[in-house]
Amino acid sequence: MTIAAFCGSFDPITKGHLDIIERASRMFEEVYVFISINSGKTSSFSLEQRMNWIKQSCQHLSNVHCRIQNGLSVEACKSVNATVLIRGLRNTLDFEYEKNIAAMNTLLDPCIETINLFTKDEYANCSSSNVKELLKYHQDISRLVPECVLKEIEK
Amino acid sequence: MTIAAFCGSFDPITKGHLDIIERASRMFEEVYVFISINSGKTSSFSLEQRMNWIKQSCQHLSNVHCRIQNGLSVEACKSVNATVLIRGLRNTLDFEYEKNIAAMNTLLDPCIETINLFTKDEYANCSSSNVKELLKYHQDISRLVPECVLKEIEK
Amino acid sequence: MTIAAFCGSFDPITKGHLDIIERASRMFEEVYVFISINSGKTSSFSLEQRMNWIKQSCQHLSNVHCRIQNGLSVEACKSVNATVLIRGLRNTLDFEYEKNIAAMNTLLDPCIETINLFTKDEYANCSSSNVKELLKYHQDISRLVPECVLKEIEK
Amino acid sequence: MTIAAFCGSFDPITKGHLDIIERASRMFEEVYVFISINSGKTSSFSLEQRMNWIKQSCQHLSNVHCRIQNGLSVEACKSVNATVLIRGLRNTLDFEYEKNIAAMNTLLDPCIETINLFTKDEYANCSSSNVKELLKYHQDISRLVPECVLKEIEK
Amino acid sequence: MTIAAFCGSFDPITKGHLDIIERASRMFEEVYVFISINSGKTSSFSLEQRMNWIKQSCQHLSNVHCRIQNGLSVEACKSVNATVLIRGLRNTLDFEYEKNIAAMNTLLDPCIETINLFTKDEYANCSSSNVKELLKYHQDISRLVPECVLKEIEK
Amino acid sequence: MTIAAFCGSFDPITKGHLDIIERASRMFEEVYVFISINSGKTSSFSLEQRMNWIKQSCQHLSNVHCRIQNGLSVEACKSVNATVLIRGLRNTLDFEYEKNIAAMNTLLDPCIETINLFTKDEYANCSSSNVKELLKYHQDISRLVPECVLKEIEK
Repeated sequence: MTIAAFCGSFDPITKGHLDIIERASRMFEEVYVFISINSGKTSSFSLEQRMNWIKQSCQHLSNVHCRIQNGLSVEACKSVNATVLIRGLRNTLDFEYEKNIAAMNTLLDPCIETINLFTKDEYANCSSSNVKELLKYHQDISRLVPECVLKEIEK
Repeated sequence: MTIAAFCGSFDPITKGHLDIIERASRMFEEVYVFISINSGKTSSFSLEQRMNWIKQSCQHLSNVHCRIQNGLSVEACKSVNATVLIRGLRNTLDFEYEKNIAAMNTLLDPCIETINLFTKDEYANCSSSNVKELLKYHQDISRLVPECVLKEIEK
Repeated sequence: MTIAAFCGSFDPITKGHLDIIERASRMFEEVYVFISINSGKTSSFSLEQRMNWIKQSCQHLSNVHCRIQNGLSVEACKSVNATVLIRGLRNTLDFEYEKNIAAMNTLLDPCIETINLFTKDEYANCSSSNVKELLKYHQDISRLVPECVLKEIEK
Repeated sequence: MTIAAFCGSFDPITKGHLDIIERASRMFEEVYVFISINSGKTSSFSLEQRMNWIKQSCQHLSNVHCRIQNGLSVEACKSVNATVLIRGLRNTLDFEYEKNIAAMNTLLDPCIETINLFTKDEYANCSSSNVKELLKYHQDISRLVPECVLKEIEK
Repeated sequence: MTIAAFCGSFDPITKGHLDIIERASRMFEEVYVFISINSGKTSSFSLEQRMNWIKQSCQHLSNVHCRIQNGLSVEACKSVNATVLIRGLRNTLDFEYEKNIAAMNTLLDPCIETINLFTKDEYANCSSSNVKELLKYHQDISRLVPECVLKEIEK
Repeated sequence: MTIAAFCGSFDPITKGHLDIIERASRMFEEVYVFISINSGKTSSFSLEQRMNWIKQSCQHLSNVHCRIQNGLSVEACKSVNATVLIRGLRNTLDFEYEKNIAAMNTLLDPCIETINLFTKDEYANCSSSNVKELLKYHQDISRLVPECVLKEIEK
């Protein structure tokens, strides 16, 4: 039995994130989604709100759980006995950044394996920063985020 | 229980391939290594020899099996009930090529998931083509291939 | 009034090609699609068939014309008074290749401008070589090619 | 008749910008250069000065106009009935960034087409940030900016 | 006789830096390591400490000297009659950045040549920022930095 | 005293090659230009002609010599006591290819150092293959090759 973790800011969760989570949930017995609280980074949405959105979006995935991460990703993994860390790869800019993260994680704990899933082409521009950019100009975000996020934000 | 497949020419198997297989064998219940027989490509080593090398190199991994593939990778996966296809990612040149392969495989069978493992930096130049280039000039290949390959070739 | 040209093998035309042609036809007064006959390259489909497919796919675009090119792209442009050469850009691998082509064309004729349109994400894997790879294994190509190509090939 | 827009900070306008504008002015009936006022970004030169430099540099191009943009690029386009947004592509780092911008603009308004022109090799390092870096150390910028910018800054 | 310079923040010096310095010291008669004091950048370690670490790490290299740089790299070069500026290249993200730096330096002084050495694969993740990230979480940095840095930091 | 080698097909030598040779000749005491005779590759110009062009183009560089290479680059280096192998880097496609070559050479002989010089932007498209493509269509190559090559080919 293999437990996997997926760490990120999820500020907010996008359709791209959700696609990665769904694919991971089919491969691994348990999947933990960790919202990282990076002290050096301010978020647009509260931790509570981000967690609610993840939980609602993943309601149909019984083996997916949501947790808060306030340290290294490998520590988060260890806290739930995860041995696989999942990352989404969008493009060549991501590549070198992700390669460094994977190498660092191996240095920190060689027992935790980092795997990469390519973002599907249809979700290529579903990044949280694109969502926030669109919101700034009061534009439609329905193609980028799960319905629960859309509903809450429209309010 | 998840079964994974790793397809390639393995002409010959390198330390980089072996590292990917070992990491996969820790994540998934069963791992099938498929030697693809691509009619359009001539190999330097016989199919039998390539298979022997894989079997010997993976002797310590009880959940790893070796098979021959003579069609699409997704067909190979289906033949052993594998739902995960493993690929090694070395550099940004690989990236776009692998992204296309993953998208094609999803088109062919959406139930088979392609995952990427970064080649470890120490195996960055352990490609089969580098091995063959070194052999052409009678140079040392001990840092690139498993011991069983080395022994056989030195003979 | 600006006339544009779009050169390629179109072996066969894909939904990605068609999208580029449609976008070009909205920007420029006339668009010439050139099927290049590169002596060093063998095609899978006959010139006649490729031209028929282009003509049928572009029937709804009254300012799009199809021609044969048997020399340099800049010569093809000059033959129809086109001053703009259109290229589709899919990924970073294309980038450097296309940059060289554009620089070469400027050397050959500084009056002809090369412009690049990004392939839409949904057509990212609609390349002619992917179509041919799928056909080789008798797989479905309906998401990659216009309907007229699909019909003819299914026959 | 097609109207095109070229948006940027132009802080200050460089020979690279000017080359793109000249090439655009040959392809499209009207070209609008928009100086974007991005609230989150401080500029080195005043808006008035930047506009003067653009106007002086483009004096010989009768179909080029200069405007101020204080919202999204697609809104700027719509304000002057432009259906084409022009972007300069320098290198592979630009590529993914520009691809995302183009996809976002298509989301915002599918009627506005984004086209990319490769920066000519001779202007590869003519970026506004390079100009500012050189000025910081009181170095010669004559190869990077149009003459009118040079004259004003030397004063 | 050729004198070379290697400029950087060295905050702190890593095994990757040291490898570049050693390789440079074998190629050129004299090598000057410059610690750049970039006013816009705060360092984690004092200038004195950084210099001590460089000097201790390079004790075995009699033709390597350490200096402070508070202006442009080309000015630093001229101050010690260096005609070669050495840069380490890790990956494709570095590539375009370094290419711009080299072009800028040629603009500033055509007599100073910029050369690039590929970072060895084993030092691919030996960046100062990785060191600082690991220190932040009290993790082992022994694989990334020379022994003298390790000893001092452990204290 | 450091001796450097620059290996290639030089089929024919271009202005880009010559620029690299000139820059190398200023940095190192002796520079050997090796014409590699790769059995698997057919050349457009005879070995004699290629050597003549190199010698004529480098007449003004007293420390540059031309030799023939019929084995590995590191063997060529050793034959003239060169400890530095010079490579030109044009773009990100070259990058991964060159990184592999450098790693292979280090494996073969750790005493030979590979250094990279960025191709100047003005020579970005001065490749031998571009020259041959232009010649195929009887186009002007004066911006790409040294005068002696131009004269001979025009004949």
